[in-house]
Amino acid sequence: MQLHLLTWQEVEKYLTHSNGIIIPIGSTEQHGPTGLIGTDAICAEKIAQGVGENTGAIVAPTINVGMALHHTAFPGTISLRPTTLILYIQDYLTSLFKAGFKKFFFINGHGGNIATVKASFSQFYDHLDSMNFANSEQVKCKIANWFMGREVYQLAKKLYGDEEGSHATPSEVALTQFVYPDTIKSAPLDKSVATGHPIYGAKNFRECYPDGRMGSNPALATPEHGKQFYELAVKELTASYQDFISINN
Amino acid sequence: MQLHLLTWQEVEKYLTHSNGIIIPIGSTEQHGPTGLIGTDAICAEKIAQGVGENTGAIVAPTINVGMALHHTAFPGTISLRPTTLILYIQDYLTSLFKAGFKKFFFINGHGGNIATVKASFSQFYDHLDSMNFANSEQVKCKIANWFMGREVYQLAKKLYGDEEGSHATPSEVALTQFVYPDTIKSAPLDKSVATGHPIYGAKNFRECYPDGRMGSNPALATPEHGKQFYELAVKELTASYQDFISINN
Amino acid sequence: MQLHLLTWQEVEKYLTHSNGIIIPIGSTEQHGPTGLIGTDAICAEKIAQGVGENTGAIVAPTINVGMALHHTAFPGTISLRPTTLILYIQDYLTSLFKAGFKKFFFINGHGGNIATVKASFSQFYDHLDSMNFANSEQVKCKIANWFMGREVYQLAKKLYGDEEGSHATPSEVALTQFVYPDTIKSAPLDKSVATGHPIYGAKNFRECYPDGRMGSNPALATPEHGKQFYELAVKELTASYQDFISINN
Amino acid sequence: MQLHLLTWQEVEKYLTHSNGIIIPIGSTEQHGPTGLIGTDAICAEKIAQGVGENTGAIVAPTINVGMALHHTAFPGTISLRPTTLILYIQDYLTSLFKAGFKKFFFINGHGGNIATVKASFSQFYDHLDSMNFANSEQVKCKIANWFMGREVYQLAKKLYGDEEGSHATPSEVALTQFVYPDTIKSAPLDKSVATGHPIYGAKNFRECYPDGRMGSNPALATPEHGKQFYELAVKELTASYQDFISINN
Amino acid sequence: MQLHLLTWQEVEKYLTHSNGIIIPIGSTEQHGPTGLIGTDAICAEKIAQGVGENTGAIVAPTINVGMALHHTAFPGTISLRPTTLILYIQDYLTSLFKAGFKKFFFINGHGGNIATVKASFSQFYDHLDSMNFANSEQVKCKIANWFMGREVYQLAKKLYGDEEGSHATPSEVALTQFVYPDTIKSAPLDKSVATGHPIYGAKNFRECYPDGRMGSNPALATPEHGKQFYELAVKELTASYQDFISINN
Amino acid sequence: MQLHLLTWQEVEKYLTHSNGIIIPIGSTEQHGPTGLIGTDAICAEKIAQGVGENTGAIVAPTINVGMALHHTAFPGTISLRPTTLILYIQDYLTSLFKAGFKKFFFINGHGGNIATVKASFSQFYDHLDSMNFANSEQVKCKIANWFMGREVYQLAKKLYGDEEGSHATPSEVALTQFVYPDTIKSAPLDKSVATGHPIYGAKNFRECYPDGRMGSNPALATPEHGKQFYELAVKELTASYQDFISINN
Ligand code: NI
Ligand code: NI
Ligand code: NI
Ligand code: NI
Ligand code: NI
Ligand code: NI
Repeated sequence: MQLHLLTWQEVEKYLTHSNGIIIPIGSTEQHGPTGLIGTDAICAEKIAQGVGENTGAIVAPTINVGMALHHTAFPGTISLRPTTLILYIQDYLTSLFKAGFKKFFFINGHGGNIATVKASFSQFYDHLDSMNFANSEQVKCKIANWFMGREVYQLAKKLYGDEEGSHATPSEVALTQFVYPDTIKSAPLDKSVATGHPIYGAKNFRECYPDGRMGSNPALATPEHGKQFYELAVKELTASYQDFISINN
Repeated sequence: MQLHLLTWQEVEKYLTHSNGIIIPIGSTEQHGPTGLIGTDAICAEKIAQGVGENTGAIVAPTINVGMALHHTAFPGTISLRPTTLILYIQDYLTSLFKAGFKKFFFINGHGGNIATVKASFSQFYDHLDSMNFANSEQVKCKIANWFMGREVYQLAKKLYGDEEGSHATPSEVALTQFVYPDTIKSAPLDKSVATGHPIYGAKNFRECYPDGRMGSNPALATPEHGKQFYELAVKELTASYQDFISINN
Repeated sequence: MQLHLLTWQEVEKYLTHSNGIIIPIGSTEQHGPTGLIGTDAICAEKIAQGVGENTGAIVAPTINVGMALHHTAFPGTISLRPTTLILYIQDYLTSLFKAGFKKFFFINGHGGNIATVKASFSQFYDHLDSMNFANSEQVKCKIANWFMGREVYQLAKKLYGDEEGSHATPSEVALTQFVYPDTIKSAPLDKSVATGHPIYGAKNFRECYPDGRMGSNPALATPEHGKQFYELAVKELTASYQDFISINN
Repeated sequence: MQLHLLTWQEVEKYLTHSNGIIIPIGSTEQHGPTGLIGTDAICAEKIAQGVGENTGAIVAPTINVGMALHHTAFPGTISLRPTTLILYIQDYLTSLFKAGFKKFFFINGHGGNIATVKASFSQFYDHLDSMNFANSEQVKCKIANWFMGREVYQLAKKLYGDEEGSHATPSEVALTQFVYPDTIKSAPLDKSVATGHPIYGAKNFRECYPDGRMGSNPALATPEHGKQFYELAVKELTASYQDFISINN
Repeated sequence: MQLHLLTWQEVEKYLTHSNGIIIPIGSTEQHGPTGLIGTDAICAEKIAQGVGENTGAIVAPTINVGMALHHTAFPGTISLRPTTLILYIQDYLTSLFKAGFKKFFFINGHGGNIATVKASFSQFYDHLDSMNFANSEQVKCKIANWFMGREVYQLAKKLYGDEEGSHATPSEVALTQFVYPDTIKSAPLDKSVATGHPIYGAKNFRECYPDGRMGSNPALATPEHGKQFYELAVKELTASYQDFISINN
Repeated sequence: MQLHLLTWQEVEKYLTHSNGIIIPIGSTEQHGPTGLIGTDAICAEKIAQGVGENTGAIVAPTINVGMALHHTAFPGTISLRPTTLILYIQDYLTSLFKAGFKKFFFINGHGGNIATVKASFSQFYDHLDSMNFANSEQVKCKIANWFMGREVYQLAKKLYGDEEGSHATPSEVALTQFVYPDTIKSAPLDKSVATGHPIYGAKNFRECYPDGRMGSNPALATPEHGKQFYELAVKELTASYQDFISINN
């Protein structure tokens, strides 16, 4: 169930039997010459909907702009600063908490979000505690990165080996091809692709990775692969959500 | 064209002939017993895509959480505080500005966003100016509220008269029915509906408007009406975008 | 009664029978070649004092610097950024709320303040709610723009027609002439005056409106007109304050 | 000259021969059973106008709400938090700096402002420096506390000895009596008055100083004294402003 | 060389041949019944000094309070919120950058800092970029966690196996015993120690981990072990610093 | 007792008989050609430890970076902006308050910190009050500047007369020589030293005070003097801490 397609009375009823919610978070950033700018949000949203169907959980609106400052030297990238994203998540979760939600399960499509999202969780717990909100000690947040699931990772390695790379990867491109089979892009891709440079600021990133890819060969992606990734990710995160929601401590 | 479905190289090319972009902004908030929580975002996004098709403009990712603090006593509502939304928009637009965008056309689906979005524009102009960014004096932002277009407004009056109300209106509900014909909700609606109370804080709002509607009768909505609203809104905002993009001063 | 001219014990006594307060808010900004930089604050303060006399309400200190970023390319303008003004108003009202005030009636002299002041109200309600302050759900804020009162507006139209314009208007200049008859300015005013340009950033504003006026002819102003505007505004806002203070919901 | 009573063109002309400006800063806070809540702002504003007349300097609008958190347990007090006041002063001065002002002379009426105003100056210099504003290294700010001038202080000691105290003092009350001879208050004042307690939080302050006075006997004040204080303060601060404005380094 | 023991002229000279600096960052937080509250800062500082000696690099003052919100239910813990730590690091690094430093090598002693420190780096790069500081694209930051070095990790596993745990570990306790042999603590330690609970808010953490240890047996620590850890960590991080400082891109 | 060398259980026990804590605060800033960059932190920390030994009070970790923006034109200086330092101190003290500490005694080594630290105290009291924390009205903070103690001051005058100056003073340099006898610096010092210039921004400061000294002759310092200053400061601040901790109001 998508929160956007429910009424408030349906949410009220849902809260009588569950206090969990799934929050997809992606990014709006360059994904190389053939990857969609919305790749990370598209993947996170699609998988979240699959997990929502499996578990009956509500899926909140996708956080489609994340922490992608290092990609901002490429046109089309939109990024929040970490402090802004922390405040954004604090407000977002506080609204849901006041309504009765207590378990927040983020399905994440972008590695660059992880640090700031984790910092947001710390800030949020402390915010609730400082405000003396009742039952705030029961609140739990978790970030699950679909691309780091064990089986997803193994499939990527099996299909692509080292050509999976770490950004604009064939696995994420494949997943977007599965979701949007009509917008599969083609563009010349250099055989040799930059790899191994640490990530610093935006200008340095573009110098190091001139076409935006990080060690990847997204030309290997196919919609059929994407379907496989989708199904594995949904399977793994369904189990992960169910574990998360069932713990008491 | 949706930004999320483009590559960065396609954006780079687009910027050689246009510096305009359309940004849908909605909200995640209660819309009465039969209105979808995502109503405002759904309407803004759908209309923005229509305007994008007409004009060839890029449509950026929908800002799906806005300023809806007064609705937060109803479960399912998610809101940013005004200061957070201002920082969010500042970061969002600064990223686009650095890439070369200069004309930002917001298509808005939620009256409660207007004040904060206008404040954001002022803050953003000043931010660019203080940072000494080149050409920042050419930046222009505009907010266009689809529901306040002349013809849209007249159609709503013609179809619903006073039962249009001002929140959870049949016109916006109709538009979501057009977009999502499979999620048309039904729920008992009191004949008498609260109206005319000024808006203060969230608890007061719920006391004044116990089912969330403000003077509206969304039972009058039909998907066919929705189609009409959609087409009128796209027509009006297409013209508005073209005007906006063509001005030099 | 002006708060500045009371003792704390007089305020304590006042709070036993009223929880309302009037807050004048203006701006410090250019008002064309003949308008005073303090025009908006002067008008708001003067009218607030008149309303205070009529109603016995306390008038708080004038917020004399507001949101005037678009005027900052003209010397003498002082502006807060919207986020600063929101924090300012939050602190200002929180102090009064802790003492027992609950109804905050802003008398505003500057159109550019409206968006940010409205955003401030939303932020303030939420702040009180999050802090778990007792009785915070009873708090109500209202902004009343003296120049938008029905009778004031009609008088301006009657006296000046289209030459009223929308900034550095003869009506506001007249009111300052009534308050400060000894500082009536004269300066050459071009017959033709810029009008109709949307408002973007500060540099653009000055290019569009080179002498600061927006479609107005302040040469039509007289102190006698000012007296009429003053009296009408006080009459209208006295009624508005009394309504505001008497509502329970 | 008061900035509020000038036009922007007059300011533009002024800037061709001076880059100095006087900024009165006071507070809105309890001043004991007979002192006006606006005492600090009234004194600072009045003296600033006198100095402005003597020197031909522009006097900016009075900052009438300052840092008075420790007085907020008394009704009528309004205070900013230090971080808010710092941002407020930063915005205020940045506007003036962009227009060409470089020397900012604060005339202060409230001891509690001093720490935060000094911190604001540091923050402001750094802000200009970080923004790479041209000539920002020429900016100079100074805070002058009228009640700490040598001759003012001596007069207070001569007239009142230890009964001057340190808050709600007869000297400041006298000055307000001189400015507002029609609002001289009378109320019973305990012979014994609290004194010597360090200042901590607001509740503690009210416990320590139950009627708001700190070791003072404001019953000794007279309008004639007030006139003397006014004249001495204007004399001392006129000299101080002239020194400040003439220094090159 | 410790920055605190240099003069500014020595720093000026250093900058003619190096633009690198080492910044130890720890935490002030409970470390179980026998671990020092300053463990993480003590370890980071000691190792940083060793690396400084090996490489001739300047070691900046230790950031001794970090992100430890989840430990704040135990007395003695001091933590910053993530947004505060981000601003702190931004200011800290901006000062050094203005003087000419460009390569910032953090030696970290606390796992809980990692997310926020990484977010800080992103914020800092963007800050420099937005400010248009010259050469800001050359800035590079790196966080090196001494306890995650390959050889350090292997030694911990060899000495302690699973009893290393993940907080209040024997390895870090050993290192503090090596540094402060006179403050070795003894206290009863339950045989069974909590382990495996995810980290949420502070109260939940203390419920899950009642004595503060996470799966560790610090009773195994000895000062001799500490010496070994120290030497390995210095060796590994010396190499890491030299690599970092020598890269051009 | 240093907090860093305690366990949380020792802190828990301490809190059963005392709620006081000593917090050393210094700075990282140039101290002339022969003064250590860490002078202010070194002095504050050393003296705090002495007072801690005399009184049995816990000494918290040294705040080693303070408000030194005016020194940032000299390499090696690190400064927080005032708003950052205020948030830092708020977080720092809130953590300790939640554990049960109520009396916070700052031992300060840097004049430039005083304004911002005082502002921080105001902000902190208000923060606790707004959060409705129990017993927050009992919280008390005090800043004690070791170099302003009566006997310390007299000794400095006796030993150095006017050559004490006001920054990079022989007294503080002597104290660091006493603490670090092996890092006594020598460098040519001009006979004539700048003095008397007010402090504005960083660039102006360096122009006025080209070698960083303010009217001082640190060549007069000796480790023996340093020992005397240390002992006097510890004696004076021991008494001051005991007074502070014993007051009830
Ligand atoms: Ni991706
Ligand atoms: Ni709506
Ligand atoms: Ni006006
Ligand atoms: Ni006063
Ligand atoms: Ni540790
Ligand atoms: Ni010093």
